[in-house]
Amino acid sequence: MKFVLDTSIFVNPEVRKNFGDNPTEAVKTFLSYAEKLFGKVEFYMPPGIYREVMHFVEGEEIRPAIELYIIKKPPNVHELKIPAFVVYELIEDIRRRIDKGLRVAEKAVRESVLDTDNVDNIIQKLRRNYRRALREGIVDSKEDFELILLAMELDATIVSADVGILTWAQKMGIKWVDSSVFREVLEGLVEKLEGKNL
Amino acid sequence: MKFVLDTSIFVNPEVRKNFGDNPTEAVKTFLSYAEKLFGKVEFYMPPGIYREVMHFVEGEEIRPAIELYIIKKPPNVHELKIPAFVVYELIEDIRRRIDKGLRVAEKAVRESVLDTDNVDNIIQKLRRNYRRALREGIVDSKEDFELILLAMELDATIVSADVGILTWAQKMGIKWVDSSVFREVLEGLVEKLEGKNL
Repeated sequence: MKFVLDTSIFVNPEVRKNFGDNPTEAVKTFLSYAEKLFGKVEFYMPPGIYREVMHFVEGEEIRPAIELYIIKKPPNVHELKIPAFVVYELIEDIRRRIDKGLRVAEKAVRESVLDTDNVDNIIQKLRRNYRRALREGIVDSKEDFELILLAMELDATIVSADVGILTWAQKMGIKWVDSSVFREVLEGLVEKLEGKNL
Repeated sequence: MKFVLDTSIFVNPEVRKNFGDNPTEAVKTFLSYAEKLFGKVEFYMPPGIYREVMHFVEGEEIRPAIELYIIKKPPNVHELKIPAFVVYELIEDIRRRIDKGLRVAEKAVRESVLDTDNVDNIIQKLRRNYRRALREGIVDSKEDFELILLAMELDATIVSADVGILTWAQKMGIKWVDSSVFREVLEGLVEKLEGKNL
């Protein structure tokens, strides 16, 4: 049994609270499960996700356990192939988002002319709306894409709370668990598998 | 021998002038070559490209020849697969462009506050710069992507003048001819192949 882990488990406040009060505590809690499941369940992270997680935690508190229980591996991007219709839909989606981003930008320009004293607020709002138009719900980073590719390569289960990632996982026939229920899944696995020789 | 044709041959003024004074004339000139090469060379268009071309020409002047000499075929998006590294690079490229698009938008907002009488010019400039940041040199439409997929499926040569399309073609190991030299290629083919039984 293999899981590919996203940062959201340890970093996203809504999800992380299941595991601990801060990212370091969350990783520690996770590692206590991973230790019990060692030899029965494998946990993976692609390099970009690993770097993101390490950026949020106190490294010395979780080493060397994290190196033992989380396998770092990049996907083999030169061997893997993506179904064309998934890329086709991605290109269509991006095109629509690009058009929407321009409308958001034009609206901000027209607002700022009518309210010249409020330009900083208008720019803040522009950033929020632009981000929503262009980035929310889409696989928009190589870190996210590596996660999907690695799960595909290993025939592993993706653990994520990201809508863009979960949408792609479903299009590409990849198993997934939502980060918000991952602690229960780990509890269940420990209960079922602990002590058994597989 | 198979070619997959982009709209640029008939529509892009720089390229089209090799074939005729307007899109209809350009298609007619092309069809005179295709007629001579019939049975020896096949010319294809995916449906989106065909629709685009038909939008620019007088249909009655080129029918039924266009139906006989240009084969309309969509790519089989449910069978074809794209190398993961190509999608990986696409996602990285788009991410950089999205960030740049936001900078272009913020700049337009700040300019408009200092020059409130000139908002229409600022929006025109925003549209140009945004388009350049987000869309130039990238495969950003399903029409373009269909062209690449169809060439891949048929092991055909892409004929295009679009930088985004030609860049992808090269990444994916697809044969290509630049639209600007396509007339010479057709001349050469007629000279070499006309009268021969292949």
